Amino acid sequence: MASNKYEEITKAAVMLFERKGYHATSVQDIADEVGLQKGSLYHYITSKEDLLMQLAHRSISEFNGQMEEILKNASLTNRERLHLAIENHLKYVTKNVQLTTVLLREAFSLGEDQHQVIQDLTDKYLNLWTQVIEQGIAAGEFRPVHARITALSILGSINWVYRWYKEGGKLTASDISKLYSDLFLDGIENR
Amino acid sequence: MASNKYEEITKAAVMLFERKGYHATSVQDIADEVGLQKGSLYHYITSKEDLLMQLAHRSISEFNGQMEEILKNASLTNRERLHLAIENHLKYVTKNVQLTTVLLREAFSLGEDQHQVIQDLTDKYLNLWTQVIEQGIAAGEFRPVHARITALSILGSINWVYRWYKEGGKLTASDISKLYSDLFLDGIENR
Repeated sequence: MASNKYEEITKAAVMLFERKGYHATSVQDIADEVGLQKGSLYHYITSKEDLLMQLAHRSISEFNGQMEEILKNASLTNRERLHLAIENHLKYVTKNVQLTTVLLREAFSLGEDQHQVIQDLTDKYLNLWTQVIEQGIAAGEFRPVHARITALSILGSINWVYRWYKEGGKLTASDISKLYSDLFLDGIENR
Repeated sequence: MASNKYEEITKAAVMLFERKGYHATSVQDIADEVGLQKGSLYHYITSKEDLLMQLAHRSISEFNGQMEEILKNASLTNRERLHLAIENHLKYVTKNVQLTTVLLREAFSLGEDQHQVIQDLTDKYLNLWTQVIEQGIAAGEFRPVHARITALSILGSINWVYRWYKEGGKLTASDISKLYSDLFLDGIENR
């Protein structure tokens, strides 16, 4: 598999899925966009659904990998872990607005089995966040909040950024990250 | 227009749009679901897009109406206003999970002009939230947070609830409302 061409195909697919919607985008549209015959495109991908699945799997795996690194780092407080988690997630969303739009909007179009795989990885990610908050409560860093709901609340909030973030807007990803960290960390901090 | 039939049609449409996606749902599917001939269905609706537009317009107008009531009520502190705003929005989302899913996922399918109308009403809603936070800051009730980003942060977080809320789950709408209010109000309160 020529990986440069594959990357070009995934980029074209993300752009088309975002603009037209996953359902309305055909394999022919993707082939046209990268200047390949439809038959040749199938050297790189097995189906449109497979392409969406690869994109989703890659993203959520990256999120999980980053979060596992944060949890493993014994030199961090849980407050620092949560701050880093917010920062990493926001950086990803703001760097990949089109991809985030596609994944959050179109993942429901995956077949049941594939959707379940993504759902399980997403649940794992939520559990890692919940773990940081639970550890922070146990260590007396955070108030005894409902850890899972707090994790859902923060994740919902930072995922939502894809809907209003404009690259080159007044606020940089790092500004937003700072504002969100302050808001949430002040919200759960033990005093 | 026989309003009972119209309500039945919108309910069927929301159910189909949520399950199959807006694009994959045909007017024929909606007609079949409510036991009408396609020709008769057009006595009630002008098009599938019009139906989506009506649903979006009705929801966002209801949100704006509630928020204007809250702002007009001079006996409330801004802390109370924000608490009520969170509660109202969450009640709507948890009572209308299917509809919220459709609106948040499918509004991009509206034509440009119609989408702009919804976008403008949504901006108005965001402005009303921002106003409550700005008033709260001016009154010394809230810390000098970035009012607009804080509004976006709270709205993103409570919109996200449609993705995980299960009716009849362990947490009621009012439990969630309490948890979210505590989290956000503690996050911005002036001490």
